Amino acid sequence: MAILDRINSPKDVKKLTSQELVELAQEVRQTVLHKVSNVGGHVGPNLGVTELTIALHKVFDSPVDKFVWDVSHQTYPHKILTGRKVGFTDGHFHDITPYTNQNESEHDFFTVGHTSTSIANALGLAKARDLTNGKGDRIAIIGDGSLSGGLAMEALNNAGDFDGNLIIIVNDNQMSIAENHGGLYRNLAELRATKGQAENNLFKSFGLDYKYLEEGNDLEALIALFEEVKGIDHPIVLHIHTEKGRGYLPATENKEAFHWRGAFELETGALKATPAGKSYTSIMLDYMDQKLSEGIPLVAINAAIPGIFGLKQFAAKYPERYIDAGIAEQFTITFGGAMATEGVRPIIFHNSTFLQRAYDQLWHDIAINKEPAIIIVKGGVISGSDETHQGSSAMTWISNIPNLKYLAPTSQEEFTAILDWALAQHEEPVVIQLPEHGVESRTTVLTDFSESTYQLEKAGEKVALLALGGLYSHGEKVAAELAEKGIHPTLVNPLFINDLDEDFLDKLTENHEVIVTLEDGILDGGFGQKVASFLGKYDVKVLNYGAKREFNDSVPVSELYDRYHLTPELMAADILKLLK
Amino acid sequence: MAILDRINSPKDVKKLTSQELVELAQEVRQTVLHKVSNVGGHVGPNLGVTELTIALHKVFDSPVDKFVWDVSHQTYPHKILTGRKVGFTDGHFHDITPYTNQNESEHDFFTVGHTSTSIANALGLAKARDLTNGKGDRIAIIGDGSLSGGLAMEALNNAGDFDGNLIIIVNDNQMSIAENHGGLYRNLAELRATKGQAENNLFKSFGLDYKYLEEGNDLEALIALFEEVKGIDHPIVLHIHTEKGRGYLPATENKEAFHWRGAFELETGALKATPAGKSYTSIMLDYMDQKLSEGIPLVAINAAIPGIFGLKQFAAKYPERYIDAGIAEQFTITFGGAMATEGVRPIIFHNSTFLQRAYDQLWHDIAINKEPAIIIVKGGVISGSDETHQGSSAMTWISNIPNLKYLAPTSQEEFTAILDWALAQHEEPVVIQLPEHGVESRTTVLTDFSESTYQLEKAGEKVALLALGGLYSHGEKVAAELAEKGIHPTLVNPLFINDLDEDFLDKLTENHEVIVTLEDGILDGGFGQKVASFLGKYDVKVLNYGAKREFNDSVPVSELYDRYHLTPELMAADILKLLK
Repeated sequence: MAILDRINSPKDVKKLTSQELVELAQEVRQTVLHKVSNVGGHVGPNLGVTELTIALHKVFDSPVDKFVWDVSHQTYPHKILTGRKVGFTDGHFHDITPYTNQNESEHDFFTVGHTSTSIANALGLAKARDLTNGKGDRIAIIGDGSLSGGLAMEALNNAGDFDGNLIIIVNDNQMSIAENHGGLYRNLAELRATKGQAENNLFKSFGLDYKYLEEGNDLEALIALFEEVKGIDHPIVLHIHTEKGRGYLPATENKEAFHWRGAFELETGALKATPAGKSYTSIMLDYMDQKLSEGIPLVAINAAIPGIFGLKQFAAKYPERYIDAGIAEQFTITFGGAMATEGVRPIIFHNSTFLQRAYDQLWHDIAINKEPAIIIVKGGVISGSDETHQGSSAMTWISNIPNLKYLAPTSQEEFTAILDWALAQHEEPVVIQLPEHGVESRTTVLTDFSESTYQLEKAGEKVALLALGGLYSHGEKVAAELAEKGIHPTLVNPLFINDLDEDFLDKLTENHEVIVTLEDGILDGGFGQKVASFLGKYDVKVLNYGAKREFNDSVPVSELYDRYHLTPELMAADILKLLK
Repeated sequence: MAILDRINSPKDVKKLTSQELVELAQEVRQTVLHKVSNVGGHVGPNLGVTELTIALHKVFDSPVDKFVWDVSHQTYPHKILTGRKVGFTDGHFHDITPYTNQNESEHDFFTVGHTSTSIANALGLAKARDLTNGKGDRIAIIGDGSLSGGLAMEALNNAGDFDGNLIIIVNDNQMSIAENHGGLYRNLAELRATKGQAENNLFKSFGLDYKYLEEGNDLEALIALFEEVKGIDHPIVLHIHTEKGRGYLPATENKEAFHWRGAFELETGALKATPAGKSYTSIMLDYMDQKLSEGIPLVAINAAIPGIFGLKQFAAKYPERYIDAGIAEQFTITFGGAMATEGVRPIIFHNSTFLQRAYDQLWHDIAINKEPAIIIVKGGVISGSDETHQGSSAMTWISNIPNLKYLAPTSQEEFTAILDWALAQHEEPVVIQLPEHGVESRTTVLTDFSESTYQLEKAGEKVALLALGGLYSHGEKVAAELAEKGIHPTLVNPLFINDLDEDFLDKLTENHEVIVTLEDGILDGGFGQKVASFLGKYDVKVLNYGAKREFNDSVPVSELYDRYHLTPELMAADILKLLK
């Protein structure tokens, strides 16, 4: 690392010769690859913008000039050049966060993780600069995949009205996480094919100035372009064509697999750990196959993350029944719901953290209209992930939408029983929260989910444990812990996240002193607080277990469980204290 | 109403001669004006699409051909032509809803009220049609103002990939609710100026076919255009230029005031009732004036509804400090938050029901980043409005976002004290829920809102009433009711919606048997359930009062209060029953 050893801040980049910059790019690539091959991470996005990042720091003066990275999963080169290269060395991989973070560096301005925000953020910085007589350029760097999100287009539209300095770099690597979807991508292709001269130009239609650069991995060309626009007095889009995964053959040959990848062998690109066998996604794929063979007119819809749900193979087999809307969560819900009104059975797949984007559409388009769509929510769980991808919020908001059946199966049998029922009815939307602690098997009896019906798994006394969804087996452990202390609690599988089984609860109060709820997410707004409210008028004590309403950034789950008293020992101790 | 008397379904429209159709348009206009001048409603949007609606029903075959109206505030002519004209006659004005509603007519397909959904809905219907070998055209009718919403653009992008019949009518009346904002509107203006021939064309950039019609209030031209595209085998945008308020001089002369208007004198357009004097919006305007004169660098941001917040006069006085982002709620939050990071003090004004669109942006951009923006939420209240504009959900979701201070003042003094504190600190975002039952005056002592501090208004015993925000004076009435029965309750003004004052609650349990919460919204996820959860381990009873999680469509508030036991008499009776 002859060059990189000398780089401790962007100032050091400016001193390098053209030849040294080219060498630096290679060293940055090796540095990125060293980390991601060891601990996993975003591969292709970072390799693709290596030259672009170096050129930005060569020409502009961060942090006076401010770079706003969209999603910021492509900021490893930026971090390496801004004093954080230690985070790419053995033993320090977790010293830096995977996204931009203003607490980590003066060269970062936002903690990000969701897409399509950069133009709005950069425009906000630009407008504020002009109101406060501030200095410097404001530069958003957004991938082509993120352009399809409504927020990005709202911001392009507002940028078209702005009359100060704003540079929007569209990093066009011809890919979203998977392939791109939508008409705007044909326009980008036309623009690439014509070197920016195509008749139609989305950006110009929003009133924005525009320049195209074909060689987005050519340092000299990038530097020339940036020097040309530095200090520009109006908004401009720089459409820059880059290669995702540039410089690492496995990543350029399989762009989707190397968008984000777990730890892998550097030489071959092969994953170090192979994924576990049975999963709810594989169960779901088999299930959809079966139902299609039975003539159920289902379709699968997702927003740019087919790989997470194993939907690539579904798409290959049933292309006309598969819709990837691109990064456009709002659209998937309104569109899917409308299909449901015509007798088609949409199954809409979302990660909890991204589904938040479609809150209003769930409320207005799906719930008010009672459109019988099925929505599968993955990742709604207390986890050790970074704060911008926590799914522990799912229950705080999904469970408070009227008309929305929201179910938490605990086993594969319950999961498919719910799906069977959901497909057999045409009355209401159904949201299914996948359990996230492995696939369990359990005999199920319930086949009708139209009315909330808690499942009594084990009758006991004094203490009742209502262990929801993914935490059901956790409830079993609490029961075992209590049994050791001579208490034989009732164990309940509530299944229904947001509709109380009031008769069941009423009856529970007859021979129980303490009623305990467990849920795999933030308590506020969730399942347990509804139970506590209902039981407020009864002569029982209630304990709600789940996560606190707070952001956690890559805190190990075991630490969170301790903090929230979510271990069998701590819960048993709390409960025993309350017993008379 | 020589012609209209004969129109009971779209079939009857098809029988009319060209001259009769022109006369019908005049009769429809008179019919619309008769209703809105009597009971209020959307004026300009309906008058503008009168010919367009007649032409649609003349050429297409509803309900086999399906019209999907965006927002659907412009469907009075559609309703009049589809068997619902009785709803425009004296004594029957409330027999039909103000928006489309599939329970009301086979010619309506969705219950709508929020903008920018029509293209996604129509595309869903089109895709489902093609999968099920269904028939007919699918036609979205969207106003130019609604195009700026991200969902509309997500759908335009996805429509660009669709290969079946889909007609997107852009009803361009050169207006949102107020004037339009953003670069796309310059593009629409270019297209109007060039009769659709401008070099840049947003719709073509999304890969869509396109036709322009200048004379959008000319029945023959409309009919010719629709006949030309009927049965088209691919998506097309029909850009149709209409005049908002057409045919009623007061409405064409003051388009914004007549977008929606309360009951008015038909002859002059003057409002029958003048708005009340002091309001929180007038207090807010005076406050902003004052703070600007003190040098506080604030800006006011809103999404297309300046009139609701009295922001037109602010915009006139401080044009550089006013941002109307158009219908783009997501953008307002991300953009405003970014400004806050630069020392500018954004005050972002939203109606509760529309702010839902920006849930993810509040969570990710404002809250994770702790951007010290101030967000004013209006309309978060149990109300008699239609189900697509209920704001009673505000607390169910805003209150469960971490890092988000969420306050419910009960008086103008508390409101301005909160604003003073919010502007003096730079640590956290603050959301202020406006009380909605008139402006009250009350001496306030609290000046620091950094820690949750409930206000003890009157010390009592046995029963404690925690009466939040707009329902504080309701709590006073309950206290009076209980006093008559010999119970002298403690009365508390909690002020903090989502952060418990745990010490205060702990202390309350010492000499109270029943703790009662009152909140002006849906209980699930809100204030009271958090209190109930916290008190679960104490030996007290808890009663939570607020709305049930359900949709209500124009149900009178008094009926809702009865249903939810939100009257002083019913609450007092419940409480007395619980006392030992």
